[in-house]
Amino acid sequence: MVKLAVLPGDGIGPEIIEQALCVLEVIKDKYDFTYTTQTGLLGGAAIDATGEPFPEETKELVLQSDAVLLGAVGGPKWDQLPGEKRPEKGLLGIRKALNLYANLRPVKCWPQLIQQSPLKNEKLAGVDLIVVRELIGGAYFGKRGQEAILGGIKAYDTIEYSTPEIARIAKVAFSLAGKRRKIVTSVDKANVLDTSRLWRKTVEEIAKDYPEINLNHLYVDNCAMQLCLNPAQFDIIVTENMFGDILSDQASVLGGSLGMLPSASIGEGPALYEPAHGSAPDIAGQDKANPLATILSVAMMLRISFNRGEAALAIEKAVSNVLDQGLRTGDIWSPGTQLVGTRAMGEAVRKEL
Amino acid sequence: MVKLAVLPGDGIGPEIIEQALCVLEVIKDKYDFTYTTQTGLLGGAAIDATGEPFPEETKELVLQSDAVLLGAVGGPKWDQLPGEKRPEKGLLGIRKALNLYANLRPVKCWPQLIQQSPLKNEKLAGVDLIVVRELIGGAYFGKRGQEAILGGIKAYDTIEYSTPEIARIAKVAFSLAGKRRKIVTSVDKANVLDTSRLWRKTVEEIAKDYPEINLNHLYVDNCAMQLCLNPAQFDIIVTENMFGDILSDQASVLGGSLGMLPSASIGEGPALYEPAHGSAPDIAGQDKANPLATILSVAMMLRISFNRGEAALAIEKAVSNVLDQGLRTGDIWSPGTQLVGTRAMGEAVRKEL
Ligand SMILES: CC(C)[C@H](C(=O)O)[C@@H](O)C(=O)O
Ligand SMILES: CC(C)[C@H](C(=O)O)[C@@H](O)C(=O)O
Repeated sequence: MVKLAVLPGDGIGPEIIEQALCVLEVIKDKYDFTYTTQTGLLGGAAIDATGEPFPEETKELVLQSDAVLLGAVGGPKWDQLPGEKRPEKGLLGIRKALNLYANLRPVKCWPQLIQQSPLKNEKLAGVDLIVVRELIGGAYFGKRGQEAILGGIKAYDTIEYSTPEIARIAKVAFSLAGKRRKIVTSVDKANVLDTSRLWRKTVEEIAKDYPEINLNHLYVDNCAMQLCLNPAQFDIIVTENMFGDILSDQASVLGGSLGMLPSASIGEGPALYEPAHGSAPDIAGQDKANPLATILSVAMMLRISFNRGEAALAIEKAVSNVLDQGLRTGDIWSPGTQLVGTRAMGEAVRKEL
Repeated sequence: MVKLAVLPGDGIGPEIIEQALCVLEVIKDKYDFTYTTQTGLLGGAAIDATGEPFPEETKELVLQSDAVLLGAVGGPKWDQLPGEKRPEKGLLGIRKALNLYANLRPVKCWPQLIQQSPLKNEKLAGVDLIVVRELIGGAYFGKRGQEAILGGIKAYDTIEYSTPEIARIAKVAFSLAGKRRKIVTSVDKANVLDTSRLWRKTVEEIAKDYPEINLNHLYVDNCAMQLCLNPAQFDIIVTENMFGDILSDQASVLGGSLGMLPSASIGEGPALYEPAHGSAPDIAGQDKANPLATILSVAMMLRISFNRGEAALAIEKAVSNVLDQGLRTGDIWSPGTQLVGTRAMGEAVRKEL
């Protein structure tokens, strides 16, 4: 029996997770997918209860699970805490503990929402890409510090990458591309950074094992331009942690709503699934949040962690049908469509299943 | 008498610089702006002639000048050279030698070119921002290296910032904002990086001297989203070197053509002016390049280095008139407008003056 660890987190986290779990209940019956869930604390909720953003208990829970479903973490309530005690540290902690080295962020454009996109419609045809972000290396986890100098302080962070770290994320990118349009765009700043030169060299080395894949390289600044100018050119974008943070967020607005985008973070053990958006404290508890990204994250989980492609597809189809019916939460509403709340949106997806 | 150092560089560099200098000749007569020019080598052109991307002679030339006008550097011809010998090193070298710590990249949307923008037209109303990028600190100039480890190599780059480095660029941002809409958005990743926490603290400290300025902070990933979702919210964006590299390039496509964007890099001595675009080796020498960004960089030079606001405005007005006439180089051409070459475009601007 599959063991799911569920971490609702902060802000809108609990209410979107609730809808995602209700959808999963329907899958259980219809697709004979049996599982148990156990809930844990992460982020601000964990700080309030235990003083730690990623408590030991939560660590044990996720290490013993088969997959983790996460809502969102953070909020202004915890923004004044020192670096080590902030909700974000919980996120970084769980990534490290589960060795989640690959973050997958699929971006596509739902035809029903094309008007919501900031891009001109003709730019959006054929947009279907995945940003593969290295998640536990680079400046996020390198040595850092501060020292007093004349006239103030000097701070530093270290971007660090090794051949094996780059090789394993490159393999994820190439094998994903093999199941898709067979294009990998590796993004770096090899004209300036040593880590980027090692990145490029290693990716080229790994590419030799995937002769059917078309590999190209872009500098990160150019990639930021291309994502606006011609996003349909991309299939798989693979890049280091910080560049991936920036580019995946930039890419996430192309489709028109961040509220529609799921994500998966994978390592060798249990994988973690969460919506791409944040905890939106301003609308928390008001039945206004869009649960679809979290519901689509459940679909990713079924496909990637449990090889249940059919059930995943059924969820994705149900979401598309609900959009066809014209139902919209506030973030994706436009004149002529019907505004619904978090619960009604979840309910509509369940009905379609 | 003003001494200009002119560095045409590679690719389309020489032909766009030629047009910019012809425009400056008209200014000389009309606005009584006397100057001499001396040409130097930088980038690939310098490598071919001397083996060095930033030869000693060029260094002397620019150090003794009152301002530097640069075309563009780089091209595939030099891409296989080792890091230290590449054209980009010339660019980094000149920035360091002249202590050019602030890069200013104004982005606005020419109404004549709104159709060329990847963004929906309604997103573009009121877009008028300047990215102020720190240019000689951070990962670009920090300690870097490689060492052998089990299974390969480990590389690192160090992001370094000190209080004085952050303070001086913050002052540039605040005083620019004072002459504009009085909004500064400081961009960092203070939820993860130590350098970013120092950045934020220092910017807040400096802000106390500018009580009339409205300061806000954005995380870099969020800023990348906001630049697509709502670019009109920004007046001055100030950020560290690498974030600025990415965000200024992302911002530069909003207006529809990179071929229209000037830039200035300033320090305490001579400042450097160059178009925001690259050397476009594929169209070099074919009279196809857009000279307007370089011509507009001359306008920035007149305004910033020589306090000749009137002459600068005249150039900007002339460029706008030429667009009104429907003249377009290939990069900004659309049906119904008239395709012209580099020389004809320069000539048209001169006529308008
Ligand atoms: C909250 C923050 C530490 C995190 C990151 O930058 O990794 C977030 O932006 C994300 O992308 O998941
Ligand atoms: C060529 C490269 C080193 C340079 C940079 O990243 O600074 C360029 O991209 C720029 O933005 O001027």
